[in-house]
Amino acid sequence: MFYILIIGGVQMSLKLGVVGTGAIGKDHIKRLAFTLNNVELIGVTDIVEGRAAQVLDELGLSNVKIYRNDIEMLPDVDAVMITASSVAHAEIALHALNAGKYVFCEKPLATTAEDCLKIMEAEKKYNKRLLQVGFMRRYDKGYQELKQAIEEGVIGNPLILHCRHYNPVVSLNYTTEMLITETLIHEIDVLHWLIDDDYQSVQVIYPKNSTIAEKQQMQDPQVVILRTKSGICIIVEIFVSCQYGYDIQCEVVGEKGIASLPEPTSINLRLNGEQKTTILMDWKERFIEAYDVEIQHFIDRIVGENTLTGPSAWDGYIAAITADACVNSQKTSAIEEVVLVDKPDFY
Amino acid sequence: MFYILIIGGVQMSLKLGVVGTGAIGKDHIKRLAFTLNNVELIGVTDIVEGRAAQVLDELGLSNVKIYRNDIEMLPDVDAVMITASSVAHAEIALHALNAGKYVFCEKPLATTAEDCLKIMEAEKKYNKRLLQVGFMRRYDKGYQELKQAIEEGVIGNPLILHCRHYNPVVSLNYTTEMLITETLIHEIDVLHWLIDDDYQSVQVIYPKNSTIAEKQQMQDPQVVILRTKSGICIIVEIFVSCQYGYDIQCEVVGEKGIASLPEPTSINLRLNGEQKTTILMDWKERFIEAYDVEIQHFIDRIVGENTLTGPSAWDGYIAAITADACVNSQKTSAIEEVVLVDKPDFY
Amino acid sequence: MFYILIIGGVQMSLKLGVVGTGAIGKDHIKRLAFTLNNVELIGVTDIVEGRAAQVLDELGLSNVKIYRNDIEMLPDVDAVMITASSVAHAEIALHALNAGKYVFCEKPLATTAEDCLKIMEAEKKYNKRLLQVGFMRRYDKGYQELKQAIEEGVIGNPLILHCRHYNPVVSLNYTTEMLITETLIHEIDVLHWLIDDDYQSVQVIYPKNSTIAEKQQMQDPQVVILRTKSGICIIVEIFVSCQYGYDIQCEVVGEKGIASLPEPTSINLRLNGEQKTTILMDWKERFIEAYDVEIQHFIDRIVGENTLTGPSAWDGYIAAITADACVNSQKTSAIEEVVLVDKPDFY
Amino acid sequence: MFYILIIGGVQMSLKLGVVGTGAIGKDHIKRLAFTLNNVELIGVTDIVEGRAAQVLDELGLSNVKIYRNDIEMLPDVDAVMITASSVAHAEIALHALNAGKYVFCEKPLATTAEDCLKIMEAEKKYNKRLLQVGFMRRYDKGYQELKQAIEEGVIGNPLILHCRHYNPVVSLNYTTEMLITETLIHEIDVLHWLIDDDYQSVQVIYPKNSTIAEKQQMQDPQVVILRTKSGICIIVEIFVSCQYGYDIQCEVVGEKGIASLPEPTSINLRLNGEQKTTILMDWKERFIEAYDVEIQHFIDRIVGENTLTGPSAWDGYIAAITADACVNSQKTSAIEEVVLVDKPDFY
Repeated sequence: MFYILIIGGVQMSLKLGVVGTGAIGKDHIKRLAFTLNNVELIGVTDIVEGRAAQVLDELGLSNVKIYRNDIEMLPDVDAVMITASSVAHAEIALHALNAGKYVFCEKPLATTAEDCLKIMEAEKKYNKRLLQVGFMRRYDKGYQELKQAIEEGVIGNPLILHCRHYNPVVSLNYTTEMLITETLIHEIDVLHWLIDDDYQSVQVIYPKNSTIAEKQQMQDPQVVILRTKSGICIIVEIFVSCQYGYDIQCEVVGEKGIASLPEPTSINLRLNGEQKTTILMDWKERFIEAYDVEIQHFIDRIVGENTLTGPSAWDGYIAAITADACVNSQKTSAIEEVVLVDKPDFY
Repeated sequence: MFYILIIGGVQMSLKLGVVGTGAIGKDHIKRLAFTLNNVELIGVTDIVEGRAAQVLDELGLSNVKIYRNDIEMLPDVDAVMITASSVAHAEIALHALNAGKYVFCEKPLATTAEDCLKIMEAEKKYNKRLLQVGFMRRYDKGYQELKQAIEEGVIGNPLILHCRHYNPVVSLNYTTEMLITETLIHEIDVLHWLIDDDYQSVQVIYPKNSTIAEKQQMQDPQVVILRTKSGICIIVEIFVSCQYGYDIQCEVVGEKGIASLPEPTSINLRLNGEQKTTILMDWKERFIEAYDVEIQHFIDRIVGENTLTGPSAWDGYIAAITADACVNSQKTSAIEEVVLVDKPDFY
Repeated sequence: MFYILIIGGVQMSLKLGVVGTGAIGKDHIKRLAFTLNNVELIGVTDIVEGRAAQVLDELGLSNVKIYRNDIEMLPDVDAVMITASSVAHAEIALHALNAGKYVFCEKPLATTAEDCLKIMEAEKKYNKRLLQVGFMRRYDKGYQELKQAIEEGVIGNPLILHCRHYNPVVSLNYTTEMLITETLIHEIDVLHWLIDDDYQSVQVIYPKNSTIAEKQQMQDPQVVILRTKSGICIIVEIFVSCQYGYDIQCEVVGEKGIASLPEPTSINLRLNGEQKTTILMDWKERFIEAYDVEIQHFIDRIVGENTLTGPSAWDGYIAAITADACVNSQKTSAIEEVVLVDKPDFY
Repeated sequence: MFYILIIGGVQMSLKLGVVGTGAIGKDHIKRLAFTLNNVELIGVTDIVEGRAAQVLDELGLSNVKIYRNDIEMLPDVDAVMITASSVAHAEIALHALNAGKYVFCEKPLATTAEDCLKIMEAEKKYNKRLLQVGFMRRYDKGYQELKQAIEEGVIGNPLILHCRHYNPVVSLNYTTEMLITETLIHEIDVLHWLIDDDYQSVQVIYPKNSTIAEKQQMQDPQVVILRTKSGICIIVEIFVSCQYGYDIQCEVVGEKGIASLPEPTSINLRLNGEQKTTILMDWKERFIEAYDVEIQHFIDRIVGENTLTGPSAWDGYIAAITADACVNSQKTSAIEEVVLVDKPDFY
């Protein structure tokens, strides 16, 4: 099944292939096939034997081709979506960029800063942006409304941010380090974009451990303090076994007021001596619209303007370097500097 | 520009024509052309000389055909969307139904109960539902969550409903009667669906008039009390010059608790000695998602199941009869019965 | 135990006796003995054999004298507090007024409008106010803040009020009529004070009955619509077996905005997929401060200014007449007029 | 003017004298004279020539004696309230304790930890507590409800606290250090009481400075991180020129939920496209009830039980040591240990 956009008789849809058909891959395949416009899902590939076929079968997408690997798929597509495992991101991205294809790469861009630099190098040759990293929060209405309020000066200059990234529960193989690389990574990206500033240093503090986390030898919660170049102090509480819900909070303290991220709505109940609303338990519901908007935006920028404006390889590199500094601070308990290469004019 | 849905090589998109390209018509044309799936916008027609061409031009839809009238368009389409002026709805719907076409008719279905009956008669011949009325609130997430909570018995049997339908301002030609036929009409439909009950009687009460309304010889606000067959008491406050915002509220008092419609979210500000959130001023933003879901649902039911399940001609008839009773009560100040014909098995 | 206020060597405390030591009587005795200032609790009396002694004993108030009846107590006190059963209020009040004593009479002032008129007649002779009725809500901070906002024109002229008076549960001997005379009576008093207007008519509507109420042959909930002389429409929902809490709500819809009574505060919890605050279950906690302020105000007006400014016998009369009209409307299902005698200049 | 509590003919009121009649002194004098029970305001003294007389005159308290100094007043009173300037607290407290009198000392207990130790030494001789420090927040209903929820295990073990102490504006002579000694001091006391834990270390972080603070060469806001012995991480944001209001927040993150301090209530408005409540601008209103409860508690413990249970000299010492560590951290930017002497069994 596919959609075709025709303007003046000319087909305008983006031919796209997906690399990796795991959980997030499958979600994006559904989006591409049934919800988004101006895109044609040409093919998929997966390193796990038989998984691609199973996913397509489950979704009733018998017309989508299964390729043996990403390299084989490249000639048939305009763009590649990378939803493979994190360690494979860099290699797949480099294949695609070297073939001159557009790339949508789920976060993280790569697992090392070095690989991020290689990707930037590969993209540079074309003198235009070819790659977007899947930091979907920038496409969330709430964050956008918050950013607009900050930019309009509603609360004056931002001085402090206080954020929470809480999950009710994580898998048993989650580790202390993954609270940074898998959880905090979203805040690392969205917050420097939100306040249009760069990170100077980071510090990770370990509060008293939760008994649940202790059992799986993980430190949870953690408090991360990020300082920006202009001096803004960002405090993020990460807590991935908080039990009560998936809760994303962001308060920006400005010189003259505080602006806070909207909470998801629900019906309000008065029942049994309580007034209450619902907190989401499932992270997938929280940013479900943002995912749609993000990928439609990726498609439409390419189809309409032949370039990209979303989170870039440079943003992926910032995230990698900053996460590395946090992981170092986990070990040293010290303030760690965030040291970036010079920003290429290109971005 | 159009999208084509292809499954197994067979085109699955619904060919649709729009009758009426005024404000709501233009909005729906945009939805059909740029947002929704599985539909092909074949043509449009408008009784106002030149308006259809202007609208298509503004939207860059040069490929969409302009027909002289609805009858001429019928042979080329599977379905007709009626966004003409209310008085023309019945005639256009009858043309389409008699030609065996599907119909999406913006509210109201017709301006008289008699015309509604004629439409039901025309639909009956096909022994399946061909027509859906544009009561979009049923597709709003908040109302759906509220209905689900009621059906799950969270608050026990509903006993009282308290609702508000407030607009900040209306045009100068708005009248006392239009508070029923244009404003309350949405509550009339959505509330009997919400509690799955039928109206027994209505009573309109005039509170002290607002000075703004007084200037345009309109009674505003109005309080409407609807009693259902099972005895539930519904109190709706309509206030179309309330100044402060577009505010839709719905509280359902059950035997053991109250459930309330969610409010639209916004960032929360602490500023100038106040904690505050934003109330929408523009009604179009409030149910913008519901409009998309509603029309996609109309398309998908036809494409996938060859029938309809949304608000029916019978619902349009209920709305017409109930609105008539309210308008009578405006004049008599008395409780007016809501008398329906027997419900055809068909619905 | 007692307190003595001395200014310039002159004792300034009010000598007060309490008639009736039931639930509310005992509460007020505690207030008078342990919390309030400028008052000396001289004595108590109760028609129930032994109850006064038991109450004083429980509170450790061995110094307070027990009188055989109110008449015997009058010579020793400056003021009488009437917390006897409602049917006895008028007689006790008349005894006190005829002896020239100040009176604080718990609501209702009397059980018939005729008796209220007699009390007004008795008070009139002194050419100053001697009696205050125990409508404590006027002394609640929230209602006062609401009244101030209305008077300052924050929301423009009031047009509609929507109020709730919900109890989680009532005793098994509660009746359909008591929803008016015991429950609505508080709204009857506080609302005409709040908007500074007089009632024109009332109408009682019976929604679907709750199953709990049905078992005790009581109609609950009830919706009461009061119209004022200036045309304001007041809708009060009374629901005394609502199960979920003691919930007092009051929303005033003005020409340009809505002002609502504050909810009692509590800690906010995020727990088990919910965000929630507590709703009171016990009515006594809701206005506990208002009771203190009300009676201290009664005492201080007498001690300091030798007159009273709280809810008057006239307010008690309005409540009686309006409640009578509501009880009539319960029987006739019709709109019933509220017909008052001419207001004496005196009030 | 004074009140006398008489039980069984024995006078039970506490004879109290006030040292210092500045802003907070005058407020407490009003409380003692007009609101609180079981206390007799015997006299006042002030080092500022004529100020005591002026204050008594303004309050109409002609019967209260003016003493030349605290030593002269001691023989006439049971208890001394110290509301003099901070530097004089220790000396006055020592005079009173050495004379065997009860002491209510406004915060801080003393300006040096050394002086706090001297006071503890002086109190020790009596083998019972004679002194209470004026940390009124412990008497605030909200903090008490929060403490109760924690102790009942509602949210599980506390792991992180996030608090705000914001003032709209401070006087021009406020300094960077005073954000600790005058502002944070309240959190230092109330938080270790709230979670029943001791401080291990502190760290002060300077976010970007507000332009208002910069003008008066003060660092504002500041973020203070306190670690407790059990590992709880407390993050307090102090911001004394935040402009928007006096805002006290306290969120306790436990293993399974978050409990937050209630916000002060106000009427809720829907107006001009906003839904809003009021934030207090004046700190005096926020804890006005807590002040009454606190001092009444001081009086009643002495009168009824001849000892004290409120914040002790030891709590005053903890506050002094912890504030000193914070002020050090302001200078070193490092984590500073909180080193206490062994806690005397006495407390």
